Amino acid sequence: MFETAELGRKVDKKTFAAEEPKLHTALLEVQRTLREATFPVIVIVSGVEGAGKGEVVNLLNKWLDARGIQTYAFWDESEEERERPRYWRFWRALPPRGTVGIMFGSWYTQPIVRNVFEQIDADAYERELHRIVEFEQLLIDDGALIVKFWFHLTKKDQRKRLEEELGGKAASPQLKKFSKHYKRFAAVSERAIRVTDTGPSPWYVIEAADRRYRDLTVGRTLLAAIERRLQRAQAAHEPPGSKPPPAPLSKESALTVLDQVDLARTLSTRNYAKQLARYQARLRQLAWKAKQQKRNTVLVFEGWDAAGKGGAIRRVTAAMDARLFRVISVAAPTDEEKAQHYLWRFWRHLPRAGYVTIYDRSWYGRVLVERVEGFAREDEWLRAYQEINDFEEQLAEHGVVLAKFWLHISTEEQLRRFKEREMIEWKQHKITAEDWRNREKWEPYEAAVNDMVARTSTDYAPWSLIGGNDKRCARVDVVRTVCERLEAALD
Amino acid sequence: MFETAELGRKVDKKTFAAEEPKLHTALLEVQRTLREATFPVIVIVSGVEGAGKGEVVNLLNKWLDARGIQTYAFWDESEEERERPRYWRFWRALPPRGTVGIMFGSWYTQPIVRNVFEQIDADAYERELHRIVEFEQLLIDDGALIVKFWFHLTKKDQRKRLEEELGGKAASPQLKKFSKHYKRFAAVSERAIRVTDTGPSPWYVIEAADRRYRDLTVGRTLLAAIERRLQRAQAAHEPPGSKPPPAPLSKESALTVLDQVDLARTLSTRNYAKQLARYQARLRQLAWKAKQQKRNTVLVFEGWDAAGKGGAIRRVTAAMDARLFRVISVAAPTDEEKAQHYLWRFWRHLPRAGYVTIYDRSWYGRVLVERVEGFAREDEWLRAYQEINDFEEQLAEHGVVLAKFWLHISTEEQLRRFKEREMIEWKQHKITAEDWRNREKWEPYEAAVNDMVARTSTDYAPWSLIGGNDKRCARVDVVRTVCERLEAALD
Repeated sequence: MFETAELGRKVDKKTFAAEEPKLHTALLEVQRTLREATFPVIVIVSGVEGAGKGEVVNLLNKWLDARGIQTYAFWDESEEERERPRYWRFWRALPPRGTVGIMFGSWYTQPIVRNVFEQIDADAYERELHRIVEFEQLLIDDGALIVKFWFHLTKKDQRKRLEEELGGKAASPQLKKFSKHYKRFAAVSERAIRVTDTGPSPWYVIEAADRRYRDLTVGRTLLAAIERRLQRAQAAHEPPGSKPPPAPLSKESALTVLDQVDLARTLSTRNYAKQLARYQARLRQLAWKAKQQKRNTVLVFEGWDAAGKGGAIRRVTAAMDARLFRVISVAAPTDEEKAQHYLWRFWRHLPRAGYVTIYDRSWYGRVLVERVEGFAREDEWLRAYQEINDFEEQLAEHGVVLAKFWLHISTEEQLRRFKEREMIEWKQHKITAEDWRNREKWEPYEAAVNDMVARTSTDYAPWSLIGGNDKRCARVDVVRTVCERLEAALD
Repeated sequence: MFETAELGRKVDKKTFAAEEPKLHTALLEVQRTLREATFPVIVIVSGVEGAGKGEVVNLLNKWLDARGIQTYAFWDESEEERERPRYWRFWRALPPRGTVGIMFGSWYTQPIVRNVFEQIDADAYERELHRIVEFEQLLIDDGALIVKFWFHLTKKDQRKRLEEELGGKAASPQLKKFSKHYKRFAAVSERAIRVTDTGPSPWYVIEAADRRYRDLTVGRTLLAAIERRLQRAQAAHEPPGSKPPPAPLSKESALTVLDQVDLARTLSTRNYAKQLARYQARLRQLAWKAKQQKRNTVLVFEGWDAAGKGGAIRRVTAAMDARLFRVISVAAPTDEEKAQHYLWRFWRHLPRAGYVTIYDRSWYGRVLVERVEGFAREDEWLRAYQEINDFEEQLAEHGVVLAKFWLHISTEEQLRRFKEREMIEWKQHKITAEDWRNREKWEPYEAAVNDMVARTSTDYAPWSLIGGNDKRCARVDVVRTVCERLEAALD
């Protein structure tokens, strides 16, 4: 694939001097328009050693307005990064809509390097590349423009360039190392480009031997890509043929997983106190053990309004040292969050090794409230099941202990609790007009919960459906389930 | 993921009797509209043993008009199928636009079964699943509607159903076998559904314990999916941000791989005769050896008009027994071919084990003439590089020996040949107004060839660029290259 980047393409000084200022102006102009746009631009700078990736990054920073551009260099993983699933560092670095993010090194670097040095085998490498395809597709589905540059040099040119850089020490060990691995690196890189060179996210392989040619080509390619993306009206994303199943025919044909939750169970006050104390004591120990063993824990709470999420969460947190956990209450997204992919706000709060993050409502909003209320287009929430499964799979692969709860109550019990809330003064803040409106959509929500369980209850991240008509039962169930998940995971 | 298909969903007799005729009529009606549509419908019927997949297939055949429906049952691979890359059988079975294809067993069956019985490991299984995702995406990109049904039974229900079928022989070995593997089969299937349950190609997991519920749900789901797909206007397929690089700045910055082809070489008549005879003799032996070793061979010829493709092909075929090869001259697609994906017409002609197919022009038309003439939309030809690479990778994985030739001549030499053709009576049929028109688009074609080589010259399927100003040189080069490719591949 690199044949076309070994042709001796060149630009002379005069042409460069004439073109460069025009390009600079055009880039600044397009960047101004971009500021109002609803999508981010992700520029990936990669290629062989000595091809001048650093020079290109500096040049882009020179050409573009600093207010709308951020550069991320992915050196070795930090302590902080190693403690979280690998893509966490990339999610952190994603540029907000309307801006340009330059990725110097990227999700490509580590898989390529590790395969070159045979730390991962061919199959593992393929899986990494497919993960990249999925990740980029997810960004593109969200509107992102991804421009991927690969800078290429022949072995001879690489040697020349590195000699320049290293001050002519032709026999230096670095030089030898690069020369030695040139062929293997080229083969491994070719595979990466081959698998990830998709229609919506193509690679631009650029001949880097002539600096003027390289620089102008980068600038003009980037300019053209952004201009074109700006011109394009927001494309209709609706996928062919995806459709939720037709409406049910009868009550019996409309059963959902929620109909199987036992709502009749109860627990006496005394038994409750005893059992809760027992499981909380266990959880206290387990949380410390997880800290020692550096296992991260993620707990997800979803459920009907007034189903008792808050109470259940408090019974969990009461059993843990306050330094070990964080509760993330998911309300409307912040401005900063709105400028990102919907999963971004959840990635940012992932716990570090040994810690616990509790999500009070979560990424499942995409397939629950956003689906039912029409805040997400159908193609968006249909796609979300896959996105969520990919996300949770990454957590599981990293060793994160994951428990997901749906707190279920009957519609009669909800009514009783709503009325109670209206009566009791200090509970009035907990009931709003929106709660009453949501209640009217009980059936579509039921269908959404059923689909959610059908599509996202996996081996590594099963759903626990908790009967919550009796709050005491529900709380004990939740604390016990958390214990069980931790016990199964810890040594 | 199967929790939602273990709920005891049912439809009573009366409801079924009322609904079934309505559904039948509606399906026939939608099928009539479908006949005029530009897309095919692919229905995948899969699930656990005993769930009644056969009954469902029969029912769909009863409900739908036989003229627009075809059923394909993928039993064990035939001799004929085993001799070709594995997906060949599926390409053969794809329904033409405007019709419904029922896939009883499908691309899912073999990977699942082989993983259940540990004939392939987890990594290989993942690769298979990703291949499926890519295959289905390719069909969807081409407009296809894919409706995937998974029929589920609990272990208990499966036992009951199988006892019925096998006449109550509860202890029969078949029954034991299924029961024994139930759990493993469920886990492996769950993984398949999880990975391939994408937004545009979702799974419908259907509870199969109650036949009436199962049947009505299948019919209504299929009806809704087709109706919806029909309503949808042909979506704008344009992907975000994909764009060929900007126009070149100067001659030197516009060099392509074709500029590197040596056109000055010549060969004397005597040397030509000698060398040609030598390589043809070698090729004769190699072709027989490939037959013995059951290695399939695919040769692809592309090149400028009048570059000498026909002559080169004749020098290759002259060296082989006529029973061993077929030449496929790619002209305008037939009606039957137009009703399929553009790769379909090439899949159908793949050689069987030990044989040779020579494509005189090929699937590369998509990124050459269709790109330059605008017959394919930009998103279509941009996507095609990946599709073509996937296709050729499947050939390579199967062990097919693949050689791809671009016959290159200078524009002056082409002019000379065109004029010669016009002068010599028996060559006049070889030159048309279209040839002259194509000639005017030399530069865009050059750019297209360069991109084609950049994106599809791979390790397992490299491009050979043959200098053809001297026909003798070109012919010897081609025959020699075919020899070399065969020699490298054969024991």
